[in-house]
Amino acid sequence: MENDLKKIGNQTIKLNSNPKIISTYSIVGPKEGQGPLGEYFHEVISDDTLGKDSFEKAESEMMYTAIKGAINNANIKEEDIDYLFAGDLLNQITSSGYAARDLNIPFFGLYGACSTMSESLSMAALFIDGSFAKYVVASTSSHFSSAERQFRFPLEYGSQRAPTAQWTVTGSGAMVLSKEGDFPMVTYITTGIVKDYGEKDANNMGAAMAPAAVDTLYNHFKDTGRTPDYYDIIATGDLGKIGKKMTLEMLKEYGYDLSKNYVDCGDIIFDNETQNTCSGGSGCGCSAVVMCGYFYKRLMKKEIKKLLLISTGALMSPTSTLQGESIPGIAHAVAIEYE
Amino acid sequence: MENDLKKIGNQTIKLNSNPKIISTYSIVGPKEGQGPLGEYFHEVISDDTLGKDSFEKAESEMMYTAIKGAINNANIKEEDIDYLFAGDLLNQITSSGYAARDLNIPFFGLYGACSTMSESLSMAALFIDGSFAKYVVASTSSHFSSAERQFRFPLEYGSQRAPTAQWTVTGSGAMVLSKEGDFPMVTYITTGIVKDYGEKDANNMGAAMAPAAVDTLYNHFKDTGRTPDYYDIIATGDLGKIGKKMTLEMLKEYGYDLSKNYVDCGDIIFDNETQNTCSGGSGCGCSAVVMCGYFYKRLMKKEIKKLLLISTGALMSPTSTLQGESIPGIAHAVAIEYE
Repeated sequence: MENDLKKIGNQTIKLNSNPKIISTYSIVGPKEGQGPLGEYFHEVISDDTLGKDSFEKAESEMMYTAIKGAINNANIKEEDIDYLFAGDLLNQITSSGYAARDLNIPFFGLYGACSTMSESLSMAALFIDGSFAKYVVASTSSHFSSAERQFRFPLEYGSQRAPTAQWTVTGSGAMVLSKEGDFPMVTYITTGIVKDYGEKDANNMGAAMAPAAVDTLYNHFKDTGRTPDYYDIIATGDLGKIGKKMTLEMLKEYGYDLSKNYVDCGDIIFDNETQNTCSGGSGCGCSAVVMCGYFYKRLMKKEIKKLLLISTGALMSPTSTLQGESIPGIAHAVAIEYE
Repeated sequence: MENDLKKIGNQTIKLNSNPKIISTYSIVGPKEGQGPLGEYFHEVISDDTLGKDSFEKAESEMMYTAIKGAINNANIKEEDIDYLFAGDLLNQITSSGYAARDLNIPFFGLYGACSTMSESLSMAALFIDGSFAKYVVASTSSHFSSAERQFRFPLEYGSQRAPTAQWTVTGSGAMVLSKEGDFPMVTYITTGIVKDYGEKDANNMGAAMAPAAVDTLYNHFKDTGRTPDYYDIIATGDLGKIGKKMTLEMLKEYGYDLSKNYVDCGDIIFDNETQNTCSGGSGCGCSAVVMCGYFYKRLMKKEIKKLLLISTGALMSPTSTLQGESIPGIAHAVAIEYE
């Protein structure tokens, strides 16, 4: 029993059954729809309230839509889904809790800040690999207006944004995983350790999360024996321009050159020059919609065959920041391959 | 590959390898130490700030202490632990995030409100069963003063408490799970579906969570074919006096009589008459410390041989309550047996 341990190295699990991502769905707000990846999303909403009376309710409705959309795209029914793994940025992950309320699916709530897409995808893949389930959904969401109100200031204040600030993506992504079929497969999961290098500026999340991304990437390469050039694309979640630059430089010091195939979802989802998004996109929804929309559609066309997704999260709260705490970061990597 | 599915029925997984809870640690505040279960906890603190300058930092320190204590009680080292599953009630689960920052262990953050102990225990057991890890830690915490400030009013206001209100437990519990040794085993996991019967009173969480507890218990019995009398003890997390009464009555309508072996952790942790705790204890830490302290020590002595733990969570936030939303509940059941 002991010899079949699937963990290799310090932080990585090798998935023997190669769970497959059999469908996805991505729903985004108008601004994301106007961005460079707009055509890749399954649905672009024109009203970011979705007719609800609060942004929080709109965010929850987006997640519900993404989950139902992914189930529909898999040509299965809600009752076929064994488990739902979901999380979001709102206090007590209410977007997920209220979305789950309208679904008759056993629910595990997660919180990994903006790392939640790769956290939920990790869990879903492991549940398939462990034969705990036949179909599992992984989902996450964020909303610019609910995040601004909760983490920064209500929009009505009209506060000026720092140049290092990022723009929370309005969007939700969902995936269905299973063992069967010819689809992109999850092959390795490298789980992050919390890293804190003392960054205290809540307007510079990229800098706070970069050390976690670097640590997870470094350990992924060490544990698997792979080098960066194995992948067609290595994509961090939402480090933005500044965090991306730091990550590239730090990994170079460790001897890993990512300059050829490294992108950051937050850096590519908006045209930062014309869309006024400062250092780039952020939020749980950022890597979720880029993965479920842009990357998944390109994987299915085999334009990408080997992808390493590393969603990145900053584990602070407004309370911890007010209490003088620095910002711990975490990053989870998931290798997705389709030959 | 498909025939080895470990899921039985709608919501339950049968664990073939019977993961073992090889050690626990429980740390509680002074009030919990003075309660009826005081002698069963591993550590009772005399100062609930633990010398920290905020209750939030004290809560995080409690969780760190519980995790280190459980690792120590297992006679292993921090570097032996493959994964940490933890969550708590604070916004962005900062108690867990900051505790994890000081540990060099891959970390999965969870949020299930007060159901988080059985959620983290479920995950830990499944990671062992799936051969994803050799040693996994599950933990959760809550703190009366950080919870009051966040969910109700700062203590300084001196607000009056409703008779249906519950008293958030100050405490943290942690467990180490592995495959080896002669210890209490996790045999079945029944994962909850979110239930919302329209309760809107945030001072009556027991009523909001009872339907979820009933649903999970009902499905556990249906999925496993067991009846309530199979267990020596069936323990809900923190329904308190009112929610416990509702649960007993509703299950009776479904044909299940729990009157002989049913307790609620929130109901037994305090002497509600003399300790002024209204409807009983609550919080993530409630079922955590009762499980890691009282139940685990009695399991090890074989005074209890078959235990069903169902931690119960209310998935609202102060924001959702202000926006007029009702309170969804969730409950996760874990069967623990030791012959």
